[in-house]
Amino acid sequence: MNLIEPDGPGWETKRREALLSSIPQIKLSRIDLEWVHVLSEGWASPLRGFMREAEFLQTLHFNCLRLEDGTVVNMSVPIVLAIDDSQKQAIGENSKVTLVDDNNKPVAILSNVEIYKHNKEERIARTWGTTAKGLPYVEEAITNAGNWLIGGDLEVFEQIKYNDGLDRYRLSPSELREEFTRRNADAVFAFQLRNPVHNGHALLMTDTRQRLLDMGYKNPILLLHPLGGYTKADDVPLWWRMKQHEKVLEEGVLNPDTTVVAIFPSPMLYAGPTEVQWHAKARINAGANFYIVGRDPAGISHPTEKRDLYDAEHGKKVLSMAPGLEKLNIIPFRVAAYDKRQMKMAFFDPSRSNDFIFISGTKMRTLAKNLESPPEGFMCHGGWNVLVEYYRSLLPSEGSGLRESVPA
Amino acid sequence: MNLIEPDGPGWETKRREALLSSIPQIKLSRIDLEWVHVLSEGWASPLRGFMREAEFLQTLHFNCLRLEDGTVVNMSVPIVLAIDDSQKQAIGENSKVTLVDDNNKPVAILSNVEIYKHNKEERIARTWGTTAKGLPYVEEAITNAGNWLIGGDLEVFEQIKYNDGLDRYRLSPSELREEFTRRNADAVFAFQLRNPVHNGHALLMTDTRQRLLDMGYKNPILLLHPLGGYTKADDVPLWWRMKQHEKVLEEGVLNPDTTVVAIFPSPMLYAGPTEVQWHAKARINAGANFYIVGRDPAGISHPTEKRDLYDAEHGKKVLSMAPGLEKLNIIPFRVAAYDKRQMKMAFFDPSRSNDFIFISGTKMRTLAKNLESPPEGFMCHGGWNVLVEYYRSLLPSEGSGLRESVPA
Repeated sequence: MNLIEPDGPGWETKRREALLSSIPQIKLSRIDLEWVHVLSEGWASPLRGFMREAEFLQTLHFNCLRLEDGTVVNMSVPIVLAIDDSQKQAIGENSKVTLVDDNNKPVAILSNVEIYKHNKEERIARTWGTTAKGLPYVEEAITNAGNWLIGGDLEVFEQIKYNDGLDRYRLSPSELREEFTRRNADAVFAFQLRNPVHNGHALLMTDTRQRLLDMGYKNPILLLHPLGGYTKADDVPLWWRMKQHEKVLEEGVLNPDTTVVAIFPSPMLYAGPTEVQWHAKARINAGANFYIVGRDPAGISHPTEKRDLYDAEHGKKVLSMAPGLEKLNIIPFRVAAYDKRQMKMAFFDPSRSNDFIFISGTKMRTLAKNLESPPEGFMCHGGWNVLVEYYRSLLPSEGSGLRESVPA
Repeated sequence: MNLIEPDGPGWETKRREALLSSIPQIKLSRIDLEWVHVLSEGWASPLRGFMREAEFLQTLHFNCLRLEDGTVVNMSVPIVLAIDDSQKQAIGENSKVTLVDDNNKPVAILSNVEIYKHNKEERIARTWGTTAKGLPYVEEAITNAGNWLIGGDLEVFEQIKYNDGLDRYRLSPSELREEFTRRNADAVFAFQLRNPVHNGHALLMTDTRQRLLDMGYKNPILLLHPLGGYTKADDVPLWWRMKQHEKVLEEGVLNPDTTVVAIFPSPMLYAGPTEVQWHAKARINAGANFYIVGRDPAGISHPTEKRDLYDAEHGKKVLSMAPGLEKLNIIPFRVAAYDKRQMKMAFFDPSRSNDFIFISGTKMRTLAKNLESPPEGFMCHGGWNVLVEYYRSLLPSEGSGLRESVPA
């Protein structure tokens, strides 16, 4: 971790110095802070801070970085910090800036900075493959951002915390690797998600473990790794998802002995085939060697046309060909659906297709929103109740107070 | 070359068979034919035909292809053939199609075909970094193209010819390599252009040769390699440019003994940093080992905003970092300008900047269009007269007949 060692007084002195010194300050947005978190813990290694132009260009054009020794590492999404004209002017010839949070508390120092133009249109086109208005991350983090990007080497004062009751789930890559060692894992398979876990997901994860055992691994460990950063407004918030995941483990749908639940601190870009590479690469840095990938990973509806933005098969194809990910073992998602005859989620059997119902994420959310129940066996009761409780908390009749009580 | 061997009767038989057989036919546009030309001669090697989806996706996301043996080759622009719904239906389960020219003459066979979706928006966004309306190649070749792409292995019946008086300049990569060997070249430096050659260009080329001699090369040969495929309407047409280049050699501005003039058959995409990789890679396939790159290569004005589409330095930077081009020697363009004191084109000397005038391509074309003369020493007289003659041929008072007389 690029951490300024918290060596007691020295550390506080350093922070105080940063606060009082003439080093210019940049205030971080919530998403900026999430990227500071990602960078400081090494998820994006070998990046040592926000991208300088050479890294930004390689990411946009090649989805990978070539290191000085010739090694190629995958890096598909720009991890950049935008500043505006007045900030650029204030920084002037300074080689360092202090990054501060919403309360002006110094969070990190960026040194040997490089400032370069932020061509938003080009960044968006090359990352998302569209420039249509309404892409969630773009609207949130790019459209109104400054016209310059500032790169440099990042050092945080202390590990990033959110004080939302979930920090114990925020394990860094090295903490995760230690945990896998502690559990004597000989294979780690990662499952990225940003939705509640239903029994179809669980089936897939259990089945993957069995396949790894069949391949000869003795102790495959599942990294159930929900994305914890920015998500779009109609996704279920992290706090509720974590509560739901806890129920799934409590009720034994997933086996706690072979499962590590942790939060992946990245924001969500909804950039499909470009983003799935990032999702996989970051998990490799955390010790995973198998990655489960489904239909349309990190996909989204086209913001202005009535279709999915990405071809549902492209994510898997691009991931399998991505430079720097050659050694990754990709486990394709098998399609699970609700089997009416067996009254449970099962792998779809085309020979008796009439027995199956497909329940999409949208359908699931609609049911929970309407306080209805899904078919028995779709999701464990405790997990479903969490979802219903979440949507109930949004109902206007119960006042917006409840909403406020949910940690942001 | 992927050429069906013209073994007399056998060859004609094969063409007749193709013509008469039930193999479905696809009519090629002018740009499609240019790509057939490019592919058949090996400029895009190791591509053996129009891209299948795996190649298309790697090009869009990584600007390079990974071969089965793990080698990475640069391939930055999609070389694809679009078909529409009815063509797709007509092809059905056929594994072969015949490609025919405007006169329905069979030109090539595409075999082991693969048909996949043509997501135009994504193709454009990832290739040009914008989806703004008005990009010349997009308007010409993509906007109205079909919604499917067809890839496969290409075999041409005979070398592509245009019968425009310029075919003798259309040397294939292997013909160029033979020519370089014949001239005992120990270094080949390529100069890509789509504009008339002025004395600033010539200075740069002469200077590059001197630098190569200083590096110890005994016989560096210049490949003056004008782009011969599609260009936008306000560029000077190939026929006139070739006439202008001939004058430049005739008048000794460039030395014919150390210069090979040939036509690069690719269409022009105006895709800046993405396209410059293609321009360099194709010349490597033709035996060049040094590539001269200037400001804003393959650049263009933004189609809807008042600015250049690309950062003028990005082309050079992206080229220097491009996967598969690690071994290319890139020679950065030095800035030449008109030196009023010396009355000639010279390398810009910032210590006496007032002595210099910058004459842009647009300025040059405007002067010629107005039948005015540039300052003495800007371009050789014969070359300038060709330009003036071209613009005179466009004048309405002289009738559109003259225009017709220029080979298309």
